Amino acid sequence: MENGNSMMRSEQTSSLYLEDLAVGQEFLSKAHQLDAEQIIAFASEYDPQPFHLDPEAAEDTLFQGLAASGWHTVGITMKLLVQSIPLACGLIGVNSAVSWPRPARPGDILRVKSRIVEIKPSQSRPDRAIVQIHSLTLNGADEVVQELTAKLMVFRK
Amino acid sequence: MENGNSMMRSEQTSSLYLEDLAVGQEFLSKAHQLDAEQIIAFASEYDPQPFHLDPEAAEDTLFQGLAASGWHTVGITMKLLVQSIPLACGLIGVNSAVSWPRPARPGDILRVKSRIVEIKPSQSRPDRAIVQIHSLTLNGADEVVQELTAKLMVFRK
Repeated sequence: MENGNSMMRSEQTSSLYLEDLAVGQEFLSKAHQLDAEQIIAFASEYDPQPFHLDPEAAEDTLFQGLAASGWHTVGITMKLLVQSIPLACGLIGVNSAVSWPRPARPGDILRVKSRIVEIKPSQSRPDRAIVQIHSLTLNGADEVVQELTAKLMVFRK
Repeated sequence: MENGNSMMRSEQTSSLYLEDLAVGQEFLSKAHQLDAEQIIAFASEYDPQPFHLDPEAAEDTLFQGLAASGWHTVGITMKLLVQSIPLACGLIGVNSAVSWPRPARPGDILRVKSRIVEIKPSQSRPDRAIVQIHSLTLNGADEVVQELTAKLMVFRK
């Protein structure tokens, strides 16, 4: 995905409408540094399980150490997407598919690389389209911790 | 899905292993009451967009009023699932598909109804299976605010 010409850097600030989007367009987010405190805070509220809450108890689980909830990784990804894909009407998700090949860990520096894979104009409403975006969330070693395919509703100017 | 025989109530506290699960088994969560403060707190950290942050600004958007981030609805759903599906090894998601037919709103009382739709024993590892669970998140009017299909890794005793 490292394609200098099409990759839009995180400095991107202008507002994008449907007319500004094309299949193949890429977006790179800023970085988010994860730590144990964040992992435990999210898990306490939304995913209270030992492997997300307690570094010691997590050692004896499948994760063999504290791991971020997959939904926490999604939340951080969303924050980075809002910042890196500046759609004029906002990022409005219709549906999403998500998988977690490996967990995000304390100390991970997460970045999101996104690519537009499909633009499907609405048949009934000419002012909008469904835009499918594929986003990889990478850790500092460039390993994929999450793969997200989201369908967004995007409007014309 | 209201089937008195197979619906396991939220009082369920015993730990479930793969041997305890069957296709068609259902689980009903407790309720979670959503409010504007929770919606804004989640959005501030993970989905900072006007329709999730500011009741007044939200009026002029597609949502026509403050709406919970879809990922916030997922987070609340996950909390309710952890409580209502007491798997002995925890809820470990491999992947998920999620859609939001309508947003969750301030004042909504959310409940999650889940149903096991597939159990696929691992070919290579006889100690585990992939269990697919379909979960509907409902508001107080029994309208679906979220549909989640998750594949979980579940272990034998």
